[in-house]
Amino acid sequence: MRKQIILLFAALLLILPMQAQAAKKVHWKLATTWSTTLKPLASSGPKLAKMVEEMTGGNFIIRVVGAEKHKAPLGVLDMVKGGQYEMAHTASYYWKGKDISTIFFATFPFGMLAEELAAWNWYGGGNELAEEVFKKFGVYHFPGGNSGVQMGGWFKKEIKTLDDLKGLKMRIPGLAGEVFARLGVNVTNIAPGELYTSLDRGTIDALEWVGPAMDLKMGFQKIAPYYYTGWHEPGPDLEFLVNRKAMNSLSPEYQAILKTAIRAVAADSLTENFTENALAWDKIKTEYPGVHLKTFPEPVLQAMKKATDEVLDGYAAKDPEFKNIYESQKAFMKKMRAWSNVSTGEVLNTAELVGE
Amino acid sequence: MRKQIILLFAALLLILPMQAQAAKKVHWKLATTWSTTLKPLASSGPKLAKMVEEMTGGNFIIRVVGAEKHKAPLGVLDMVKGGQYEMAHTASYYWKGKDISTIFFATFPFGMLAEELAAWNWYGGGNELAEEVFKKFGVYHFPGGNSGVQMGGWFKKEIKTLDDLKGLKMRIPGLAGEVFARLGVNVTNIAPGELYTSLDRGTIDALEWVGPAMDLKMGFQKIAPYYYTGWHEPGPDLEFLVNRKAMNSLSPEYQAILKTAIRAVAADSLTENFTENALAWDKIKTEYPGVHLKTFPEPVLQAMKKATDEVLDGYAAKDPEFKNIYESQKAFMKKMRAWSNVSTGEVLNTAELVGE
Repeated sequence: MRKQIILLFAALLLILPMQAQAAKKVHWKLATTWSTTLKPLASSGPKLAKMVEEMTGGNFIIRVVGAEKHKAPLGVLDMVKGGQYEMAHTASYYWKGKDISTIFFATFPFGMLAEELAAWNWYGGGNELAEEVFKKFGVYHFPGGNSGVQMGGWFKKEIKTLDDLKGLKMRIPGLAGEVFARLGVNVTNIAPGELYTSLDRGTIDALEWVGPAMDLKMGFQKIAPYYYTGWHEPGPDLEFLVNRKAMNSLSPEYQAILKTAIRAVAADSLTENFTENALAWDKIKTEYPGVHLKTFPEPVLQAMKKATDEVLDGYAAKDPEFKNIYESQKAFMKKMRAWSNVSTGEVLNTAELVGE
Repeated sequence: MRKQIILLFAALLLILPMQAQAAKKVHWKLATTWSTTLKPLASSGPKLAKMVEEMTGGNFIIRVVGAEKHKAPLGVLDMVKGGQYEMAHTASYYWKGKDISTIFFATFPFGMLAEELAAWNWYGGGNELAEEVFKKFGVYHFPGGNSGVQMGGWFKKEIKTLDDLKGLKMRIPGLAGEVFARLGVNVTNIAPGELYTSLDRGTIDALEWVGPAMDLKMGFQKIAPYYYTGWHEPGPDLEFLVNRKAMNSLSPEYQAILKTAIRAVAADSLTENFTENALAWDKIKTEYPGVHLKTFPEPVLQAMKKATDEVLDGYAAKDPEFKNIYESQKAFMKKMRAWSNVSTGEVLNTAELVGE
């Protein structure tokens, strides 16, 4: 009898730890740069959490915390680095003050389309270069979606010549702001909540926000008649950041589950952003016939390109890592863009020819 | 003592079935329409299998069987329906002989770009319409990647007018073949292995294959000087098919894992196809300067569009389900295309203006 008991105990000792491991729950928090209501950008965090929960039978739970709660939309990198949050959903170019090379994992003026950037990330060495940049911050970076082409902004007056830019008061942040400043624009920063009133009252003459889906909700179409096509953010990637220690503490299965979910959600983000922008653009066209779609005139675009090259070459001269990544992306983009023109470009041209 | 033994047995009885479930292995087979070496199309099956294996710690194994082995590239729908294979990786328009409505989940002439089709699939009701079509075959359909814009084909002589198409002997299958036949082309079918020789010896005057990546390997650039841009397959979706009973027999966790992996692999497929086409196009341009890139002249394109509309309207008149899906896709495409032109189209135009 004693023998049997010992055998049973031995069996239990073998089985119980396996059980405990299988049932071990993981609870993570994910901070977003966006408020919970700022869709489509804010859709991806909750979708990721749902996928991971379903794939693990409720054993890996990610709680998404919006910017309205953690109050630090541009502090999420530090919070993931410090471990207060295991993850974040944000965009890489917000960290250009910490490391200018981070812009390449988001976008820059006259840079790549979403599809071209994905090609560089996954097949052109981009993800490997991102790893070098982001490991310094103690985090893993993963491509985390894409907002699609952002629009050039809302203008009260038409831009006909370069002179029309001189002294223009415009809200446009980031590298595009640096470029516009070189063309004589008086670049200002204004809190999102005050943008509508500032444009309406003439405190500013123009502003850049995102694209049709998010611009429509802000109401700019009611007060600015000129809507310019994009040049400065042709395909901004979003990103998921993960604390390295937290990631490495996961089982290989959970690591694979998280990475696969991130890739699936990233694809969904591009599709959702594209759809919402298309539907919103249709609404603007239909319901606000006073809005004129414009592309900047060629001399203005040429000047923007020249200023962009100067700004980027300036950073490259000072920073070997920036130079290295810039050259990788430029060389790869050249090949991708030639194919974009032959494929997507010709399909669009051809369809227009036959009246589609 | 007896009490303790009973308690131990009770504990074992509770624990052992849970263990057994956790360790239950799933072994599936996936048949591909492509031969194992036909990359990038053939990359997705093995990538899916790897993701699923990693996410389940080796408990869900999918064995990928290429067409060179199962010998039925266009029999995979039947094989999944019949349960010989739990899954397939293929393209929906191969089933147009069984149900013409299946073309909408792949592509048709002057149809949607990959990004536009993804929008319809996930946010425009496309996946729900696909479910109605494919449940008749006892399978689930999932968007499974995209080859990107396919090229219009290789021609020995330039097509300058509609008359140049009359009597031309060309290998071009599917709806594009129907359209070309209406324009007087002598449409023939030739096995892939004989295409090069047929074109070289003048048995045919022209052929359509896929795009730069797969065309380059066939060697057509050595024997036909005119390479035409695409019009007939602007963004063909690939698909994963899953036997319904097999899917429903999986645990909810494994179902979620399989679906998430499919979505991630589909995104990867588009990116890999885009990259490989871009790199191959660069190679063709550089190493075969005798190849002339051409777009069909406007009157030819107009005639193609008219013939396409006639073919599709013909099917719609006979088949209410086809008509219903066609109308859904056309209405959605109109909005998506307007945005493609404003966003991607203007970025490409603008970049060309500034010499990028």
